[in-house]
Amino acid sequence: MKSKTQTHAERWGLFELALEGTDEGNPYKECLLTAIFRHRERTVDITGFYDGNGVYRIRFMPDTEGEWTYKTASNYPELDGITGRLTCGAPAAGNRGPVRIRNRYGFMYEDGTVYHAFGTTCYAWIHLNEHLQERTLRTLASAPFNKIRMCVFPKHYSFNSEEPVYFPFVRTEAGEIDFSRFDPRFFANLEHRILQLQRLDIEADLILFHPYDKGRWGFDSMDRETDDFYLRYVLARLSAFRNVWWSLANEYDFMKGKHTEDWDRLFQIVQQEDPYDHLRSIHNGTRMYDPGSVVMYDHGKPWVTHCSIQHWDVTLTAVWHDLYKKPIVIDECCYEGNIPQRWGNITGEEMTRRFWDGVTRGGYVTHGETFLHPEDVIWWAKGGELHGESPRRIAFLRSIINGAPADCEPIPAVYDVPTIGVEGEYYLQYFGLHVPAYRMIELPDTAEYSLEIIDTWNMTISDVPGKVSGKFRLDLPGKPYQAVRTRKITSDINNNPICHKQH
Amino acid sequence: MKSKTQTHAERWGLFELALEGTDEGNPYKECLLTAIFRHRERTVDITGFYDGNGVYRIRFMPDTEGEWTYKTASNYPELDGITGRLTCGAPAAGNRGPVRIRNRYGFMYEDGTVYHAFGTTCYAWIHLNEHLQERTLRTLASAPFNKIRMCVFPKHYSFNSEEPVYFPFVRTEAGEIDFSRFDPRFFANLEHRILQLQRLDIEADLILFHPYDKGRWGFDSMDRETDDFYLRYVLARLSAFRNVWWSLANEYDFMKGKHTEDWDRLFQIVQQEDPYDHLRSIHNGTRMYDPGSVVMYDHGKPWVTHCSIQHWDVTLTAVWHDLYKKPIVIDECCYEGNIPQRWGNITGEEMTRRFWDGVTRGGYVTHGETFLHPEDVIWWAKGGELHGESPRRIAFLRSIINGAPADCEPIPAVYDVPTIGVEGEYYLQYFGLHVPAYRMIELPDTAEYSLEIIDTWNMTISDVPGKVSGKFRLDLPGKPYQAVRTRKITSDINNNPICHKQH
Repeated sequence: MKSKTQTHAERWGLFELALEGTDEGNPYKECLLTAIFRHRERTVDITGFYDGNGVYRIRFMPDTEGEWTYKTASNYPELDGITGRLTCGAPAAGNRGPVRIRNRYGFMYEDGTVYHAFGTTCYAWIHLNEHLQERTLRTLASAPFNKIRMCVFPKHYSFNSEEPVYFPFVRTEAGEIDFSRFDPRFFANLEHRILQLQRLDIEADLILFHPYDKGRWGFDSMDRETDDFYLRYVLARLSAFRNVWWSLANEYDFMKGKHTEDWDRLFQIVQQEDPYDHLRSIHNGTRMYDPGSVVMYDHGKPWVTHCSIQHWDVTLTAVWHDLYKKPIVIDECCYEGNIPQRWGNITGEEMTRRFWDGVTRGGYVTHGETFLHPEDVIWWAKGGELHGESPRRIAFLRSIINGAPADCEPIPAVYDVPTIGVEGEYYLQYFGLHVPAYRMIELPDTAEYSLEIIDTWNMTISDVPGKVSGKFRLDLPGKPYQAVRTRKITSDINNNPICHKQH
Repeated sequence: MKSKTQTHAERWGLFELALEGTDEGNPYKECLLTAIFRHRERTVDITGFYDGNGVYRIRFMPDTEGEWTYKTASNYPELDGITGRLTCGAPAAGNRGPVRIRNRYGFMYEDGTVYHAFGTTCYAWIHLNEHLQERTLRTLASAPFNKIRMCVFPKHYSFNSEEPVYFPFVRTEAGEIDFSRFDPRFFANLEHRILQLQRLDIEADLILFHPYDKGRWGFDSMDRETDDFYLRYVLARLSAFRNVWWSLANEYDFMKGKHTEDWDRLFQIVQQEDPYDHLRSIHNGTRMYDPGSVVMYDHGKPWVTHCSIQHWDVTLTAVWHDLYKKPIVIDECCYEGNIPQRWGNITGEEMTRRFWDGVTRGGYVTHGETFLHPEDVIWWAKGGELHGESPRRIAFLRSIINGAPADCEPIPAVYDVPTIGVEGEYYLQYFGLHVPAYRMIELPDTAEYSLEIIDTWNMTISDVPGKVSGKFRLDLPGKPYQAVRTRKITSDINNNPICHKQH
């Protein structure tokens, strides 16, 4: 029996078909529900899911404007053979589609707009109380971040021992987790948050498995059948949200029960069951404490779209680029804060330095914050408010990068200072802890360039007076955290001489 | 014909036998001169050398007190069969013998005193004018360094283009280097400087080959026969100075004409021709710019006594310890200064941080200084004066390390903060850029400990009031560059309660 049906969707928006059926037995396990969506000669296979209370849903993210038809199939007769039509219109303002791989260094939205990843980390924010979740969203609304790392499963860890209200699986009346039935109330909230993030232009980098459980609930040690059951359900429910990324696991190597073959299998399930090919990666743990080793789960495997790395040494970006030929996101490089744990107590200066250093090597770096709090409301786990000094500087860096040419790439010829740019057009170089009194800049003598000295900590941009061609000695302020931006002066600018502040 | 002869020497002092002979032909090439020194049943084979003007010398460093006899052998009849006696007495105060390998982490003098390497770098100081050489020695006399890296050959490089007065080889009247004859005037000065360093308790880490020549003199591209000829002469002249170390090359990988087999051969010559088995290593170049790679000339080879490494990442110390099982000296990790070159423009804070980080991982770090100077008198190349902020802090660190138990080793169990110590007795931990608000200290509850917080930059040591046992929360000042020293309170101290400054 067909319920009230959506007939319009925007490109990369969410189309949802809700169907009514039986609530008897265990439809999570027993019901097979699929649909074929067709646009002209092209078809897309979609898997539906049971949402409890006799409601079944099929979600679809159309990627092409125009008329689509669909037809369901199911082993439940009342859900089988249902047909319909859907008109896909233009995307609304701000909807640029899912994030895709642009080239070996970076990302873009599907509409072609470059996407520079400036992520943060709030692992368990959706597992906390409603009030705090809303507080986190308000913070995010004015923060510089466009990606958030967050877990599907709740987290049992230092500074984070709250019992969530809902779980991905239901609990029995005795309080046991029933690994055969999902809890739609949990997913409804998760989806609500994903949509709120979407409106804030934030990608939800969803962590599908993690080790922070230690026998409390058992989500880190489910059997293979339950892992797959869970994963397929998540994929059926969430794939149609354009702003999801799949992070197979956080600190996968701390999950001793799973091995490389398991991760390969789970990756392949994601690859097969997500019709939209959202970004996929996996995040390592111990390598953080294993200096010299740069080897982790082989990010060169075909189902890994980009590298999601934990390492404190962001200078290794070039090594990983060479090794994997994929975009590098250093999703943990230590967090700004003051907790006792070594990964959670670097200064704002150092967090900012790692951002600049990674970005000027052509990688991306992810933020996290771990300041002690009287109620243990620590951003990295629970969200809430930001207290650190780095977010403002990350916003400043993001504005610099947003103003850079889309084709910026690492420039290895400048071997001694991390540099991204477009040869002959644009260079952004970062000196970090290096404090040269001057630098010889060598530019083509066939064009004119403007130079600026950027104080990345104090967030000032100082013009170097005059136009520069060829070889030039640039005096530098002799303090840490300086960058230099060099831009070719176009004929337009030549006609309207640029205004120089005194340097 | 025998000249006036020395008959006494102190243990590890210099015995020198000067012989007169012909100045005809080319004795550097043609004369074979050796001596056998005998103490009881033990004999030591020594090679002599021609010192010009008809003077031949045999130098010997006796390592055993008592009576020695010797007898020369030569293809020059007037130098052959000369015998004599030598009484070796006790070493004078401050003479502790040559530096030896103590264990896989460190060094000791031959008398058993622990030697902690706190080196600096003045590559070409002996090639500058007399006045500047004396100035350098005065600086060294009040500096915290007990090792200096210095080149035998002159250096042609940025900030260093002076023409020396003397070279290891003589010049023809036309100004050409004559690679068949050495210049004793050059060596007389070098030896004078080595002895002056010896009086300052400074080891001369002599760099035997280097690439900083580029066709100016040709010392970097001598043929194999000349390399060996030079090396054997240096060994015959200098091995008997107790404070020499052999650094086969600086940045060996920049000497494109030499390959691993060449370095192996040269190492083996040193090993065979130095009767005293002085320390031997070789120093790499490009790995500085090759993040992630920790492989260089195989320091595991039997003729390499310790690792002399260039790398900016001193956290790799543990990796190299595992790989080579030999003491690690990071002889270049960038220099404090402000020259444009990336390796020469880190801050005093960062130089100091690298020292502390390397040392609390069980390695050693070497200093260098590269501040622009109106006459290009830059310490790292020419010596002169020190201008930086790190030497005072290195002196402070050295005083801390000198006060630590001799058996300190890296404590890998403290995985998250670099720590050296002796389990249950002593711990020295360094937090560097990490700023935890507190740290949980876990100590045996069977003993009492004193804790101190060391501000490594401001050079203060603050006692934590009270005695500590078992698990203890230590509040930390929340700023970079802090260290914590934990010492077991001995019963002696228990009887005389330690005085606490307020923390």
